[in-house]
Amino acid sequence: MNLEEMVNCVVEPDWSMAKEARERQQTLTKPPGSLGELEAVAAQVAAVTRRCPPLIPRRPEILLFASDHGVALDGVTPWPQSVTAQMVLNIARGGAAINAIARVVGASLHVIDVGVATDFDGTNAVVDRKVRRGTSSLAQGPAMTLDEARRSIEVGFEFTKDRCQAGADLIVPGDMGIGNTTASAATIASLTQSSAQLVTGRGTGIDDEHFARKVSVIEDALARLSVTEQGSEGDALRTLASLGGFEIGAIAGAILAASSSHVPVVIDGVIALAGALVAVGLQPLVRDYCVAGHRSTEPAASIALRSLELSPLLDLALRLGEGTGAALAVPIVQAACATLLEMATFEGAGVSQA
Amino acid sequence: MNLEEMVNCVVEPDWSMAKEARERQQTLTKPPGSLGELEAVAAQVAAVTRRCPPLIPRRPEILLFASDHGVALDGVTPWPQSVTAQMVLNIARGGAAINAIARVVGASLHVIDVGVATDFDGTNAVVDRKVRRGTSSLAQGPAMTLDEARRSIEVGFEFTKDRCQAGADLIVPGDMGIGNTTASAATIASLTQSSAQLVTGRGTGIDDEHFARKVSVIEDALARLSVTEQGSEGDALRTLASLGGFEIGAIAGAILAASSSHVPVVIDGVIALAGALVAVGLQPLVRDYCVAGHRSTEPAASIALRSLELSPLLDLALRLGEGTGAALAVPIVQAACATLLEMATFEGAGVSQA
Repeated sequence: MNLEEMVNCVVEPDWSMAKEARERQQTLTKPPGSLGELEAVAAQVAAVTRRCPPLIPRRPEILLFASDHGVALDGVTPWPQSVTAQMVLNIARGGAAINAIARVVGASLHVIDVGVATDFDGTNAVVDRKVRRGTSSLAQGPAMTLDEARRSIEVGFEFTKDRCQAGADLIVPGDMGIGNTTASAATIASLTQSSAQLVTGRGTGIDDEHFARKVSVIEDALARLSVTEQGSEGDALRTLASLGGFEIGAIAGAILAASSSHVPVVIDGVIALAGALVAVGLQPLVRDYCVAGHRSTEPAASIALRSLELSPLLDLALRLGEGTGAALAVPIVQAACATLLEMATFEGAGVSQA
Repeated sequence: MNLEEMVNCVVEPDWSMAKEARERQQTLTKPPGSLGELEAVAAQVAAVTRRCPPLIPRRPEILLFASDHGVALDGVTPWPQSVTAQMVLNIARGGAAINAIARVVGASLHVIDVGVATDFDGTNAVVDRKVRRGTSSLAQGPAMTLDEARRSIEVGFEFTKDRCQAGADLIVPGDMGIGNTTASAATIASLTQSSAQLVTGRGTGIDDEHFARKVSVIEDALARLSVTEQGSEGDALRTLASLGGFEIGAIAGAILAASSSHVPVVIDGVIALAGALVAVGLQPLVRDYCVAGHRSTEPAASIALRSLELSPLLDLALRLGEGTGAALAVPIVQAACATLLEMATFEGAGVSQA
């Protein structure tokens, strides 16, 4: 499958199932509407999975795409680039935040190297789908070629499609990559027509000097893109190539794959949202397959959520990445489906109505 | 144990454990502070359980106290009073929202009759701790005697203490009782010095006529209480007796018992919050044993949360009761503890720091 075919195999969710879900809610033993946002989520999962009531997603999978960013060497972060590879190994050994959360919510976790600057020979715990050893710095020119951008989406798509075919019924895209909040904020700025000043956040907690440098790097990259590269029909792909990262492309591919497999996707912070904006830029229908799991404190996250018209289930002030915010929302999505599927009706339970 | 002894056996959490938890967070493989509210919850659980890192609470229990309210017959709700007993049986059979959510989050569920107007002979699934068959109507006089109020707290305490001794390590108090948002809103108004107009909500979704009646019933009851019964050292108990319900007293007792057992309590909507305000009125130390799980849409919930200075983990627009909002927060509390307990340190994982 090439990118065009991946984009074209997504169809609209079956909204008649959402309608059926809302009607079913009225018959269940609770005051109408009293399950709040759970009712909206259950209706969305019914539409996405084309089934009412939807099954409870029992096999959630976190697909954590890791990659390096040339811009990390240009003064936007105090963390050494080598931390990407060190954290990938930490995740592979089960020692990161996402591992602890995955165990609590019963999600399995795959770590996929789509562009880390270091090779992981001799470990089976890291899946090798490397596009290239790190992007070029977006501070100095396009981060990747159009072909590499396309390839990053394709590897994310292919891996995720395989997981869905193997039975994954809820996809949580995660990320690891030093410098990737810069690439993501720039991508979100470009795709939502926002300024560098508005989208730039403190990421992992940078000081004023790194922050000023981050704003200026994003400003310059946006200016370059608007002059030389934007404005054609391939906006999303060109933006990804110019500003993005391999893991952002892979997440876009993961969202396309899950959508084409009728599997809902839970997304969270700026990296996943940058990937979602790229995916929606390629195929607007995927927006309806996305559940916003958590609102990151990064300013670009709220800008992207507004643009996508998504309202997050959680707001716990996380700013960690790895898919942690989305993973925390997995039990909420399961509970939404469980209530719709398992609750008794007024009639069945012999409960009087108001 | 009498009520005075129950109140006096609560001690302060061990704040040195919270300090240790915050220090440990700095050593874990993540940017400092990036787990947001999870870090605060983990520190609180460390203090409550007097252990750092705290264990992951693997045996959460939902203790659902059910009771009837005389005021339900006074035009504040369109639901027949018999729905309390019908829903208790529905819960005992596993068909309510709280059952579906309990299964998703892996919590066990106990249903305790502390004052339902109907008897449940012949079913073992409902624990009989009935104080009386329903309260008197707070629209016409005190809902219960001081002795009954005391007894309702004691039965909640005793049942919960037993559960904690049997291994429950996270307590979620739930409720069922037609009319109980009226009793709870009145109790919250009295204990936070708020007006009837401010605390009154639509509960299960009442119309304008029931709403106006609810406001006026609460107004009159507050006026009666302020003239004849308030202002002594026993404010919380007198307020409970005058306005509250047996399940509100039982929840207050559950909070006292969990606190005295060093077990955290997750609370949510107006009924649990009314119970929490009564418990805090009797013993201010229990406030620090409470985690706010969810912000109900009922206005009295936000008033009570502000008074207790608690900030809820979830805000999903639920207004169902049964402990549903708090139960949904159980995996968040577990994840908070799991990250603090299980994550690798920078040193142990060989990850460089910023």
